[in-house]
Amino acid sequence: MNKIIECVPNFSEGRDTEKIEEIASSFRNCRGVKLLDIQKDGDHNRSVITVVGEPGPLMEAVIAAIGTAVKLIDMNTHKGQHPRMGAVDVIPFIPIRNATMEDAIELSKETAKMVWETYRLPVFLYEASASRPERKDLANIRKGQFEGMADKVKTPEWKPDFGDGGIHPTAGVVAIGARMPLVAFNVNLDTDNIEIANAIAKKVRYIGGGLRYCKAMGVELKERRITQVSMNMTNYTQTPLYQVFELVRIEAKRYGVNVVGSEIVGLVPMGAIVDTAAYYMGLENFSTEQVLEARIME
Amino acid sequence: MNKIIECVPNFSEGRDTEKIEEIASSFRNCRGVKLLDIQKDGDHNRSVITVVGEPGPLMEAVIAAIGTAVKLIDMNTHKGQHPRMGAVDVIPFIPIRNATMEDAIELSKETAKMVWETYRLPVFLYEASASRPERKDLANIRKGQFEGMADKVKTPEWKPDFGDGGIHPTAGVVAIGARMPLVAFNVNLDTDNIEIANAIAKKVRYIGGGLRYCKAMGVELKERRITQVSMNMTNYTQTPLYQVFELVRIEAKRYGVNVVGSEIVGLVPMGAIVDTAAYYMGLENFSTEQVLEARIME
Repeated sequence: MNKIIECVPNFSEGRDTEKIEEIASSFRNCRGVKLLDIQKDGDHNRSVITVVGEPGPLMEAVIAAIGTAVKLIDMNTHKGQHPRMGAVDVIPFIPIRNATMEDAIELSKETAKMVWETYRLPVFLYEASASRPERKDLANIRKGQFEGMADKVKTPEWKPDFGDGGIHPTAGVVAIGARMPLVAFNVNLDTDNIEIANAIAKKVRYIGGGLRYCKAMGVELKERRITQVSMNMTNYTQTPLYQVFELVRIEAKRYGVNVVGSEIVGLVPMGAIVDTAAYYMGLENFSTEQVLEARIME
Repeated sequence: MNKIIECVPNFSEGRDTEKIEEIASSFRNCRGVKLLDIQKDGDHNRSVITVVGEPGPLMEAVIAAIGTAVKLIDMNTHKGQHPRMGAVDVIPFIPIRNATMEDAIELSKETAKMVWETYRLPVFLYEASASRPERKDLANIRKGQFEGMADKVKTPEWKPDFGDGGIHPTAGVVAIGARMPLVAFNVNLDTDNIEIANAIAKKVRYIGGGLRYCKAMGVELKERRITQVSMNMTNYTQTPLYQVFELVRIEAKRYGVNVVGSEIVGLVPMGAIVDTAAYYMGLENFSTEQVLEARIME
């Protein structure tokens, strides 16, 4: 069974459709690589591409796309709401199938080396690939953004993992790393009181003492006159969806509030769904290999 | 997205590995067709092959395999515990992905026509492809088995859908049809009293007034000193797994018995698992297209 890795590169161009298409073209009609999604955001002036593939072909396609972005995007004239530090802002590699986090880390480091050597684009390794604890969090690396990066990379603590002490004149710097798949999971509450949604979010999320791989905040759904606990599950294999779902329900009880539904935004790995079904029905010795579609994929 | 149909042909040879391999070879290295499993049973003297593929290539491979079985298996000398009426006993086609039951029915009828014209092997259409209500159930068609089939097919009510009033001298007859995927789903009870498991089975299954697409019986798990309600779910899209799971739990309460787990035997379509997770977490507007692996397959 071949390894499948996902990559979700973020490019600092969300308006010029031709440029975005030229960047994305590296992922089209490319053996061993499949383009799943392109999200253009004009306000953020940023595009997020979702692609999956076998490690080798995926790396080649990603490096080619980075080259196109470096050629087409000049950060000196870039304006957008979303914080960014380079023409290619961030490149996460995500293990999906028959692949381990180690595979993704190795792929991210190979890619980082090639990107520096080929385009002279300095690279910070982040998340699971980070060389230091303070570089795990992308926000720390990106602080100062493109405009502040030339000075930042000169400081010893922020010397890029690949680079020569400067930034790329038009493309800035890029963060490349490995992480688990994110699952965007929201649980709806039968209250329009955002204070309650926020209080529950604080209790279930990691920084509040809650579940380790859960980020959460309260959100109002104005038309429906309800609120939700909006969450990013950063490692569904360690912190399963059913666990946070049940914990939200338990916390909601304190306020006489009920859970009235939930939603998964975007894509979710099959394992997260299988895990949930297996928990609620007490399925014994069930594996994703028993899912017909998974067998067909092998 | 291309259509994917599953086929689970049953051949009346479970002992001679060479013959089974020769029959199965039609499904190997065959573009557009994937061999998933071969189950040989010596006592039943029967092999069950699971294969998936696109309609065209799948039909070709199935017809080739039937030809091999007709050539290699002589029912006049066949002995085995499992009831059978031909060298190829039954050929179900099952819609799996981007395919409807109508697609599977059409494929089964094309295959039936080809099988008769190519091998002079008479065919009964069964299940969703049946030409009469009494032919939906394979057991009705097979009654009398190979030994009684020559006389049976001469009666007007059991004239094969394709044939000339006789049987194939060595291969007998075959049933070809379309059905939904079967899910073998067992729910475990914390009692060793088989009477209770049987009583619950009777209440949840269709013939007892229970769920329409549920067949059930009680089974003892002697080593574990528990029992289970062992079920065949014949249409998980109409009768979902969570429904029968909850119904077993509710019936068990009458006897002060608890559900202590469950198991799915063999393969299960992703839709059945997604449906279960969506029910227990109240997932709104969730579709299998959001499952990453499903998107990769497209």
